[in-house]
Amino acid sequence: MGRPRTPLLDRERITETALQLVDEQGDFSVPQIAKRLGAQTGSVYHHVDGRDGIVELLRERVASAIDPSTLDAAPWDAALEAWARSYRAAFAAHPRAIPLLMTSPVRAPRVLEQYERAVTLLLDAGFAPRSVMPLIVALENLVLGSALDLAAPETMWELTADTATPRLAEALTAVGPDRADRAFEVGLTGLMNHARALRTADTA
Amino acid sequence: MGRPRTPLLDRERITETALQLVDEQGDFSVPQIAKRLGAQTGSVYHHVDGRDGIVELLRERVASAIDPSTLDAAPWDAALEAWARSYRAAFAAHPRAIPLLMTSPVRAPRVLEQYERAVTLLLDAGFAPRSVMPLIVALENLVLGSALDLAAPETMWELTADTATPRLAEALTAVGPDRADRAFEVGLTGLMNHARALRTADTA
Repeated sequence: MGRPRTPLLDRERITETALQLVDEQGDFSVPQIAKRLGAQTGSVYHHVDGRDGIVELLRERVASAIDPSTLDAAPWDAALEAWARSYRAAFAAHPRAIPLLMTSPVRAPRVLEQYERAVTLLLDAGFAPRSVMPLIVALENLVLGSALDLAAPETMWELTADTATPRLAEALTAVGPDRADRAFEVGLTGLMNHARALRTADTA
Repeated sequence: MGRPRTPLLDRERITETALQLVDEQGDFSVPQIAKRLGAQTGSVYHHVDGRDGIVELLRERVASAIDPSTLDAAPWDAALEAWARSYRAAFAAHPRAIPLLMTSPVRAPRVLEQYERAVTLLLDAGFAPRSVMPLIVALENLVLGSALDLAAPETMWELTADTATPRLAEALTAVGPDRADRAFEVGLTGLMNHARALRTADTA
């Protein structure tokens, strides 16, 4: 028997299929991937380092949409802010992957390299080593919370006559349609201002 | 046939079962709830306002752990900060419910009442109506991102000899074990400082 020209399974197709499943249902299983690809579950395991390996392929796939050149900008705060914006856009495309990726340890080499670059940016800017990860994680928590918020319905608060919420109604009318973007800007501005203050304290 | 003393189905048991399913798998279906309760799917629908109604019961259940008295504190910024801390703790107990609740419209009366109180706090403190929802949503994005981060593994970055990440290693060693709490404090401090600045601008 000849080998097929196009292999039924490869890491790229396994990753795409896992991402489709996560986009649809928030999770995936290896048997589900096998079924979609018309393969045996055992065959999938030949190509990847277990279920955890597929999670890391997903992480590299989603994070590959973050523009790495943002971290080359100067000064450091412009770089960090541009990275945060690109990070939010990348994960907003796959909001249901966020909980899965946030609760699995990071092993993907290309993603670890991106953390190495972000950490280097902040250390070179003068941050104390103990300040760096809290700042990066705070930024990620805001970015990923805001990416989930982009998947919220247009009308997030459905007011009814049953519940008296006149001031909520007033605030919702005043904010207009770009609520999610305005909320992200408020959070990002607050965090970037605080980052500048932390650096000033660390370099004093 | 007599009616059973303890009804097989009621909203409380449906809510508990839906929450168990969400905690386990990040989602629920009405047939799954019926199966766990040994009932027909149609019977479940007799007690709730459809699947969306169950989502709102879940929202009330998870949000009921937020201490509402936090919003009575004075001054306004102490109240907002205490509310954010209690909000994070409530959702950290059910991290897998976060994406589901963030992407469904809020209809639960008791939750709408909590928004009404938070909005009232900020309007009474002098915030412009258009500033209120962006600030509340920014705080929620940080709170819910940070609640998901509390569900992350103790060792979130698994460094290997294959990938050279000496500065990430340095930053991770320096931060110590309370990374998640320190990150939340950085984010919350930044956002609260920015909230005070926004209020100063709005009342100028």
